[in-house]
Amino acid sequence: VESDGIMDRLKCTFESRESTTVQPVSRKLFNIMSAKQSNLCVAADVTKSAELLSLAEKVGPYICLLKTHIDILSDFSTEVVEELKNIAVKHNFLIFEDRKFGDIGNTVATQYSGGPFNIVDWADLVTVHGLPGDGVIKGLGSCASGQPRGCIIVSQMSSSGTLTSDEYIKGCCKMAEENAHFVIGFVAQSNISKDPRFIVFTPGVQSGCTSDVLGQQYVTPRAAVLERGADVVIVGRGITKSDDPCSAAKHYKEEAFKAYQERITS
Amino acid sequence: VESDGIMDRLKCTFESRESTTVQPVSRKLFNIMSAKQSNLCVAADVTKSAELLSLAEKVGPYICLLKTHIDILSDFSTEVVEELKNIAVKHNFLIFEDRKFGDIGNTVATQYSGGPFNIVDWADLVTVHGLPGDGVIKGLGSCASGQPRGCIIVSQMSSSGTLTSDEYIKGCCKMAEENAHFVIGFVAQSNISKDPRFIVFTPGVQSGCTSDVLGQQYVTPRAAVLERGADVVIVGRGITKSDDPCSAAKHYKEEAFKAYQERITS
Repeated sequence: VESDGIMDRLKCTFESRESTTVQPVSRKLFNIMSAKQSNLCVAADVTKSAELLSLAEKVGPYICLLKTHIDILSDFSTEVVEELKNIAVKHNFLIFEDRKFGDIGNTVATQYSGGPFNIVDWADLVTVHGLPGDGVIKGLGSCASGQPRGCIIVSQMSSSGTLTSDEYIKGCCKMAEENAHFVIGFVAQSNISKDPRFIVFTPGVQSGCTSDVLGQQYVTPRAAVLERGADVVIVGRGITKSDDPCSAAKHYKEEAFKAYQERITS
Repeated sequence: VESDGIMDRLKCTFESRESTTVQPVSRKLFNIMSAKQSNLCVAADVTKSAELLSLAEKVGPYICLLKTHIDILSDFSTEVVEELKNIAVKHNFLIFEDRKFGDIGNTVATQYSGGPFNIVDWADLVTVHGLPGDGVIKGLGSCASGQPRGCIIVSQMSSSGTLTSDEYIKGCCKMAEENAHFVIGFVAQSNISKDPRFIVFTPGVQSGCTSDVLGQQYVTPRAAVLERGADVVIVGRGITKSDDPCSAAKHYKEEAFKAYQERITS
């Protein structure tokens, strides 16, 4: 499992990778993934608080992470995030606000720790674009004030016509290495890093259809993990639009974890 | 003023550029810039509704645009945006929510037209990152439903270590040309487009200091317009942190418009 002196991420167990990092959220996530045998993240793209909480309860037992877009909730309140935190503790998953912060450090710091959402207070993880340079990471990092918090760099996107070039991806990887105290990994569509500290999250995962009308392109859980190098698969509409989100989550969890087990033993 | 068959943006008056486009927000903005002799946008980075409205009233007479980060208001309400719209009508400026949308089309559509902020309802303009591909523009465009709305592509950033390469900028320009019904121009730090239809907005403008602790790098209004090709200069802390924002806005307005007048006549 070793090449060029470093362990290859693709061949390491989640359990063994926990010891490769001191980042508190990475460690917690590796721990949950091993304990629950789940590398499934559900994208909770719903617009009502009641739907969000109900979905979190249903899929909670099968996921390591719940991904939110808190700014699409038409009836947001501080109570809903309090309740969400309770559900996360009960089912042992982390909360990941997919904010895609993409501004200068001073601005993202205010967006992260202020406004109605006060994201830093309840989201273990957030996404950032590497585009502005690492001020975006330093800005967020300055708000964590001792709480275990981290970010994921969106390094490659799944939408058609994306401008995430090879050079862009390299820039994001460098930014992660230089800011590994706060960066826990990447959103990516391919095996962009061998580093076992970093966790690779792949969105746009669904078993059925292959695109939507606004440019999203899908990949199956098995292909995401085995061909593209995903550690965590992010499934949205495949679960949320299912008649039975609970069974759908169980199915995706098993399929994705089986693919991971094949990967580490092959 | 002509080269390669197209009029050079840098040499055209704002008045004459109005007739080069059918995009309704571009036309309105060119009209305001000519009428008010202002190419100043104030970045209203404040965290209280009362401060936002008070600032808008003070700088209103001197600006063509007010740039907001609505998600940093700790006491956001639908009343504050209603009041802001009234002030914008009274002083004849447009409202520009600097959201930097950076997700797939389906997601940004929900973020733009949903949640507590319902941005499409009150912001004439929003910023997008070109990174996801033009699904981000099509997603937003699908929400406008007949209202005059538009977006600005963040093509180049002012922060240190930014990943906006030449190739990235070219990709954004192509995206603008192919989506000119909704894209009104670019956020940029240099003369990235000659096309007189597109308006170039340059942030990070300030007369005094040259950087902040989180990587923001500043340029003067004169240098922004004459050396970097800005049409509209975006001034934040230089005005909002001033003891007298009203006089500061007047000063920046005159300096930036004088630079523009020099540019078109030189």
